[in-house]
Amino acid sequence: MVILGIDPGLATLGYGVISGERSDFRLVQYGTITTPAGQPMPLRLRAVYQGVRQLMEIYRPDEVAFEELFFSKNITTGMAVSAARGVALLAVVERTEELYEYTPMQIKQAVTGYGGADKQQVQQMVKLLLHMKEIARPDDAADAVAVALTHAHSQQAKSLFKIK
Amino acid sequence: MVILGIDPGLATLGYGVISGERSDFRLVQYGTITTPAGQPMPLRLRAVYQGVRQLMEIYRPDEVAFEELFFSKNITTGMAVSAARGVALLAVVERTEELYEYTPMQIKQAVTGYGGADKQQVQQMVKLLLHMKEIARPDDAADAVAVALTHAHSQQAKSLFKIK
Repeated sequence: MVILGIDPGLATLGYGVISGERSDFRLVQYGTITTPAGQPMPLRLRAVYQGVRQLMEIYRPDEVAFEELFFSKNITTGMAVSAARGVALLAVVERTEELYEYTPMQIKQAVTGYGGADKQQVQQMVKLLLHMKEIARPDDAADAVAVALTHAHSQQAKSLFKIK
Repeated sequence: MVILGIDPGLATLGYGVISGERSDFRLVQYGTITTPAGQPMPLRLRAVYQGVRQLMEIYRPDEVAFEELFFSKNITTGMAVSAARGVALLAVVERTEELYEYTPMQIKQAVTGYGGADKQQVQQMVKLLLHMKEIARPDDAADAVAVALTHAHSQQAKSLFKIK
Protein backbone atom coordinates (compact mmCIF):
# COMPACT_ATOMS: atom_id res chain seq x y z
CA MET A 1 0.00 0.00 0.00
CA VAL A 2 1.24 3.47 -0.93
CA ILE A 3 0.27 6.38 1.33
CA LEU A 4 0.73 10.05 0.48
CA GLY A 5 0.94 12.45 3.43
CA ILE A 6 0.24 16.14 2.92
CA ASP A 7 0.88 19.11 5.17
CA PRO A 8 -1.18 21.74 3.34
CA GLY A 9 0.02 25.29 2.77
CA LEU A 10 0.05 28.00 0.12
CA ALA A 11 3.67 29.19 0.42
CA THR A 12 4.92 25.65 1.20
CA LEU A 13 3.01 22.39 0.97
CA GLY A 14 4.91 19.42 2.38
CA TYR A 15 4.48 15.91 1.03
CA GLY A 16 5.75 12.49 2.00
CA VAL A 17 5.21 9.14 0.29
CA ILE A 18 5.59 5.82 2.11
CA SER A 19 5.03 2.27 0.97
CA GLY A 20 4.53 -1.00 2.86
CA GLU A 21 2.13 -3.34 4.59
CA ARG A 22 0.82 -3.55 8.16
CA SER A 23 3.38 -1.92 10.42
CA ASP A 24 6.31 -2.28 8.02
CA PHE A 25 6.55 0.85 5.90
CA ARG A 26 9.44 2.52 4.13
CA LEU A 27 9.99 6.00 2.85
CA VAL A 28 9.59 6.46 -0.90
CA GLN A 29 9.99 10.21 -1.29
CA TYR A 30 9.39 13.53 0.39
CA GLY A 31 9.55 17.17 -0.62
CA THR A 32 7.65 20.43 -0.91
CA ILE A 33 5.58 22.37 -3.41
CA THR A 34 6.36 26.05 -3.01
CA THR A 35 4.79 29.17 -4.51
CA PRO A 36 6.32 32.66 -4.45
CA ALA A 37 4.67 35.25 -2.20
CA GLY A 38 4.76 37.88 -4.96
CA GLN A 39 2.60 35.88 -7.35
CA PRO A 40 -1.18 36.50 -7.63
CA MET A 41 -3.22 34.16 -5.43
CA PRO A 42 -5.05 32.39 -8.31
CA LEU A 43 -1.73 31.44 -9.94
CA ARG A 44 -0.37 30.17 -6.64
CA LEU A 45 -3.48 28.03 -6.17
CA ARG A 46 -3.05 26.68 -9.68
CA ALA A 47 0.57 25.75 -8.92
CA VAL A 48 -0.46 23.91 -5.74
CA TYR A 49 -3.23 22.09 -7.60
CA GLN A 50 -0.97 21.05 -10.47
CA GLY A 51 1.76 19.99 -8.05
CA VAL A 52 -0.56 17.72 -6.08
CA ARG A 53 -2.00 16.32 -9.31
CA GLN A 54 1.54 15.41 -10.36
CA LEU A 55 2.16 13.68 -7.03
CA MET A 56 -1.03 11.66 -7.56
CA GLU A 57 0.09 10.68 -11.06
CA ILE A 58 3.66 9.81 -10.14
CA TYR A 59 3.07 7.88 -6.90
CA ARG A 60 -0.53 6.68 -7.41
CA PRO A 61 -1.20 6.47 -3.65
CA ASP A 62 -3.94 4.14 -2.43
CA GLU A 63 -4.78 6.50 0.41
CA VAL A 64 -3.97 10.10 1.29
CA ALA A 65 -3.59 11.64 4.75
CA PHE A 66 -3.74 15.38 5.46
CA GLU A 67 -2.48 17.13 8.55
CA GLU A 68 -5.34 19.18 9.92
CA LEU A 69 -4.85 22.91 9.60
CA PHE A 70 -3.80 24.69 12.71
CA PHE A 71 -5.90 27.81 12.30
CA SER A 72 -3.78 30.89 12.60
CA LYS A 73 -5.05 34.00 14.33
CA ASN A 74 -4.29 35.89 11.16
CA ILE A 75 -7.51 35.62 9.16
CA THR A 76 -5.91 36.53 5.83
CA THR A 77 -3.32 33.78 6.24
CA GLY A 78 -6.00 31.35 7.40
CA MET A 79 -8.09 32.03 4.30
CA ALA A 80 -5.08 31.57 2.01
CA VAL A 81 -4.10 28.28 3.63
CA SER A 82 -7.72 27.06 3.57
CA ALA A 83 -7.87 27.84 -0.14
CA ALA A 84 -4.63 25.91 -0.73
CA ARG A 85 -6.00 22.98 1.26
CA GLY A 86 -9.13 23.18 -0.90
CA VAL A 87 -7.29 22.84 -4.20
CA ALA A 88 -5.08 20.09 -2.74
CA LEU A 89 -8.19 18.13 -1.66
CA LEU A 90 -9.61 18.65 -5.13
CA ALA A 91 -6.48 17.31 -6.84
CA VAL A 92 -6.58 14.23 -4.62
CA VAL A 93 -10.31 13.50 -4.91
CA GLU A 94 -10.04 13.52 -8.68
CA ARG A 95 -8.03 10.28 -8.23
CA THR A 96 -9.30 8.74 -5.00
CA GLU A 97 -11.90 9.30 -2.32
CA GLU A 98 -9.63 7.67 0.29
CA LEU A 99 -8.84 10.93 2.09
CA TYR A 100 -8.09 11.13 5.79
CA GLU A 101 -7.09 13.86 8.21
CA TYR A 102 -5.22 13.86 11.52
CA THR A 103 -4.61 16.56 14.12
CA PRO A 104 -1.07 17.32 15.30
CA MET A 105 -1.90 15.62 18.60
CA GLN A 106 -3.12 12.45 16.87
CA ILE A 107 0.11 12.40 14.88
CA LYS A 108 2.28 12.72 18.01
CA GLN A 109 0.24 10.03 19.74
CA ALA A 110 0.43 7.61 16.80
CA VAL A 111 4.14 8.07 16.17
CA THR A 112 5.56 8.31 19.70
CA GLY A 113 2.71 6.98 21.87
CA TYR A 114 2.57 10.35 23.64
CA GLY A 115 0.33 13.24 22.52
CA GLY A 116 2.60 15.81 24.17
CA ALA A 117 5.79 14.77 22.38
CA ASP A 118 7.88 17.56 20.83
CA LYS A 119 8.67 17.92 17.13
CA GLN A 120 12.17 16.54 17.57
CA GLN A 121 10.93 13.37 19.28
CA VAL A 122 8.31 12.84 16.57
CA GLN A 123 10.90 13.20 13.82
CA GLN A 124 13.37 10.83 15.51
CA MET A 125 10.65 8.17 15.76
CA VAL A 126 9.59 8.72 12.14
CA LYS A 127 13.19 8.28 11.04
CA LEU A 128 13.53 5.09 13.09
CA LEU A 129 10.23 3.53 12.04
CA LEU A 130 10.75 4.24 8.33
CA HIS A 131 14.43 3.23 8.32
CA MET A 132 15.47 6.68 7.11
CA LYS A 133 19.11 7.79 7.14
CA GLU A 134 18.23 11.35 8.09
CA ILE A 135 15.29 13.35 9.33
CA ALA A 136 13.28 14.84 6.46
CA ARG A 137 13.85 18.52 5.70
CA PRO A 138 12.29 21.06 5.71
CA ASP A 139 9.76 20.78 8.55
CA ASP A 140 6.79 20.83 6.16
CA ALA A 141 8.09 17.70 4.44
CA ALA A 142 8.89 16.05 7.78
CA ASP A 143 5.33 16.78 8.99
CA ALA A 144 3.93 15.24 5.82
CA VAL A 145 5.97 12.05 6.30
CA ALA A 146 4.72 11.90 9.90
CA VAL A 147 1.05 12.15 8.90
CA ALA A 148 1.54 9.42 6.26
CA LEU A 149 3.06 7.16 8.93
CA THR A 150 0.23 8.03 11.33
CA HIS A 151 -2.24 6.87 8.72
CA ALA A 152 -0.26 3.65 8.18
CA HIS A 153 -0.56 2.94 11.90
CA SER A 154 -4.29 3.75 11.97
CA GLN A 155 -5.56 1.09 9.58
CA GLN A 156 -7.95 -0.42 12.13
CA ALA A 157 -9.39 2.90 13.21
CA LYS A 158 -8.99 4.83 10.00
CA SER A 159 -12.68 5.24 9.24
CA LEU A 160 -12.74 7.63 12.19
CA PHE A 161 -10.42 9.97 10.36
CA LYS A 162 -12.02 10.02 6.91
CA ILE A 163 -12.62 13.56 5.73
CA LYS A 164 -16.32 14.34 5.96
CA MET B 1 -17.61 42.04 -23.28
CA VAL B 2 -18.95 39.20 -21.16
CA ILE B 3 -18.51 39.41 -17.38
CA LEU B 4 -19.10 36.56 -14.94
CA GLY B 5 -19.87 37.54 -11.36
CA ILE B 6 -19.36 35.03 -8.56
CA ASP B 7 -20.52 35.08 -4.94
CA PRO B 8 -18.39 32.23 -3.58
CA GLY B 9 -19.74 29.62 -1.19
CA LEU B 10 -19.62 25.89 -0.50
CA ALA B 11 -23.32 25.19 0.16
CA THR B 12 -24.41 27.77 -2.44
CA LEU B 13 -22.26 29.62 -4.96
CA GLY B 14 -24.12 32.34 -6.83
CA TYR B 15 -23.28 33.34 -10.39
CA GLY B 16 -24.43 36.02 -12.78
CA VAL B 17 -23.44 36.61 -16.40
CA ILE B 18 -23.84 39.99 -18.11
CA SER B 19 -22.87 41.16 -21.55
CA GLY B 20 -22.42 44.60 -23.08
CA GLU B 21 -20.13 47.57 -23.65
CA ARG B 22 -19.32 50.66 -21.62
CA SER B 23 -22.27 51.36 -19.34
CA ASP B 24 -24.80 49.41 -21.41
CA PHE B 25 -24.96 45.86 -20.12
CA ARG B 26 -27.70 43.25 -20.14
CA LEU B 27 -28.31 40.15 -18.12
CA VAL B 28 -27.43 36.88 -19.85
CA GLN B 29 -28.03 34.36 -17.07
CA TYR B 30 -27.89 33.85 -13.35
CA GLY B 31 -28.15 30.89 -10.99
CA THR B 32 -26.47 28.91 -8.26
CA ILE B 33 -24.21 25.90 -7.81
CA THR B 34 -25.29 24.04 -4.70
CA THR B 35 -23.75 21.13 -2.81
CA PRO B 36 -25.51 19.03 -0.15
CA ALA B 37 -24.37 19.48 3.46
CA GLY B 38 -24.27 15.73 4.02
CA GLN B 39 -21.66 15.10 1.33
CA PRO B 40 -17.94 14.79 2.17
CA MET B 41 -16.05 18.05 1.79
CA PRO B 42 -13.73 16.89 -1.04
CA LEU B 43 -16.74 15.86 -3.18
CA ARG B 44 -18.44 19.19 -2.52
CA LEU B 45 -15.28 21.02 -3.57
CA ARG B 46 -15.13 18.94 -6.73
CA ALA B 47 -18.75 19.83 -7.53
CA VAL B 48 -18.03 23.56 -7.07
CA TYR B 49 -14.91 23.29 -9.22
CA GLN B 50 -16.68 21.41 -12.00
CA GLY B 51 -19.64 23.79 -11.86
CA VAL B 52 -17.46 26.88 -12.27
CA ARG B 53 -15.50 25.17 -15.06
CA GLN B 54 -18.79 24.59 -16.87
CA LEU B 55 -19.73 28.26 -16.46
CA MET B 56 -16.37 29.23 -17.97
CA GLU B 57 -16.93 26.89 -20.91
CA ILE B 58 -20.52 27.87 -21.58
CA TYR B 59 -20.25 31.66 -21.22
CA ARG B 60 -16.54 32.20 -21.99
CA PRO B 61 -16.38 35.41 -19.94
CA ASP B 62 -13.69 37.96 -20.75
CA GLU B 63 -13.40 38.95 -17.12
CA VAL B 64 -14.56 37.51 -13.82
CA ALA B 65 -15.52 39.41 -10.65
CA PHE B 66 -15.73 37.81 -7.18
CA GLU B 67 -17.53 39.22 -4.18
CA GLU B 68 -15.03 39.36 -1.34
CA LEU B 69 -15.73 36.89 1.43
CA PHE B 70 -17.32 38.29 4.50
CA PHE B 71 -15.40 36.32 7.06
CA SER B 72 -17.73 34.61 9.46
CA LYS B 73 -16.93 34.31 13.13
CA ASN B 74 -17.38 30.57 12.77
CA ILE B 75 -13.90 29.34 11.85
CA THR B 76 -15.09 26.00 10.48
CA THR B 77 -17.52 27.74 8.12
CA GLY B 78 -14.86 30.28 7.20
CA MET B 79 -12.41 27.53 6.26
CA ALA B 80 -15.04 25.73 4.18
CA VAL B 81 -16.01 28.88 2.29
CA SER B 82 -12.34 29.80 1.76
CA ALA B 83 -11.73 26.34 0.30
CA ALA B 84 -14.72 26.75 -2.03
CA ARG B 85 -13.43 30.16 -3.10
CA GLY B 86 -10.06 28.52 -3.75
CA VAL B 87 -11.41 25.91 -6.15
CA ALA B 88 -13.60 28.53 -7.85
CA LEU B 89 -10.54 30.77 -8.39
CA LEU B 90 -8.71 27.74 -9.76
CA ALA B 91 -11.49 26.92 -12.24
CA VAL B 92 -11.45 30.52 -13.46
CA VAL B 93 -7.68 30.97 -13.71
CA GLU B 94 -7.44 27.87 -15.89
CA ARG B 95 -9.27 29.98 -18.52
CA THR B 96 -8.34 33.59 -17.77
CA GLU B 97 -6.18 35.63 -15.43
CA GLU B 98 -8.66 38.53 -15.59
CA LEU B 99 -9.92 38.04 -12.02
CA TYR B 100 -11.19 40.86 -9.85
CA GLU B 101 -12.68 41.19 -6.40
CA TYR B 102 -15.00 43.73 -4.77
CA THR B 103 -16.12 44.23 -1.20
CA PRO B 104 -19.85 44.48 -0.36
CA MET B 105 -19.36 48.20 0.24
CA GLN B 106 -17.70 48.73 -3.14
CA ILE B 107 -20.62 46.92 -4.76
CA LYS B 108 -23.20 49.08 -3.00
CA GLN B 109 -21.24 52.21 -3.91
CA ALA B 110 -20.86 51.22 -7.58
CA VAL B 111 -24.48 50.18 -8.08
CA THR B 112 -26.36 52.80 -6.06
CA GLY B 113 -23.78 55.52 -5.51
CA TYR B 114 -24.10 55.03 -1.76
CA GLY B 115 -21.93 52.58 0.26
CA GLY B 116 -24.57 52.27 2.97
CA ALA B 117 -27.42 51.19 0.66
CA ASP B 118 -29.45 48.18 1.78
CA LYS B 119 -29.76 44.92 -0.14
CA GLN B 120 -33.19 45.83 -1.49
CA GLN B 121 -31.97 49.14 -2.92
CA VAL B 122 -28.98 47.44 -4.54
CA GLN B 123 -31.19 44.81 -6.16
CA GLN B 124 -33.69 47.38 -7.45
CA MET B 125 -30.86 49.32 -9.10
CA VAL B 126 -29.35 46.15 -10.57
CA LYS B 127 -32.74 45.26 -12.04
CA LEU B 128 -33.14 48.74 -13.51
CA LEU B 129 -29.62 49.03 -14.94
CA LEU B 130 -29.67 45.56 -16.52
CA HIS B 131 -33.24 45.89 -17.87
CA MET B 132 -34.34 42.84 -15.88
CA LYS B 133 -38.00 41.94 -15.46
CA GLU B 134 -37.52 40.72 -11.91
CA ILE B 135 -34.92 40.75 -9.18
CA ALA B 136 -32.64 37.72 -9.33
CA ARG B 137 -33.35 34.89 -6.87
CA PRO B 138 -31.98 33.57 -4.59
CA ASP B 139 -29.85 36.22 -2.86
CA ASP B 140 -26.59 34.47 -3.77
CA ALA B 141 -27.43 34.79 -7.48
CA ALA B 142 -28.57 38.41 -7.01
CA ASP B 143 -25.28 39.22 -5.26
CA ALA B 144 -23.35 37.63 -8.12
CA VAL B 145 -25.20 39.73 -10.71
CA ALA B 146 -24.45 42.82 -8.61
CA VAL B 147 -20.71 42.14 -8.49
CA ALA B 148 -20.65 41.54 -12.26
CA LEU B 149 -22.36 44.92 -12.78
CA THR B 150 -19.95 46.55 -10.33
CA HIS B 151 -17.07 45.29 -12.43
CA ALA B 152 -18.73 46.57 -15.62
CA HIS B 153 -18.89 50.04 -14.04
CA SER B 154 -15.27 49.88 -12.83
CA GLN B 155 -13.52 49.59 -16.19
CA GLN B 156 -11.40 52.71 -15.64
CA ALA B 157 -10.34 51.75 -12.13
CA LYS B 158 -10.42 47.99 -12.45
CA SER B 159 -6.71 47.41 -12.04
CA LEU B 160 -7.22 48.41 -8.42
CA PHE B 161 -9.43 45.40 -7.88
CA LYS B 162 -7.37 42.71 -9.58
CA ILE B 163 -6.85 39.74 -7.31
CA LYS B 164 -3.26 39.73 -6.09
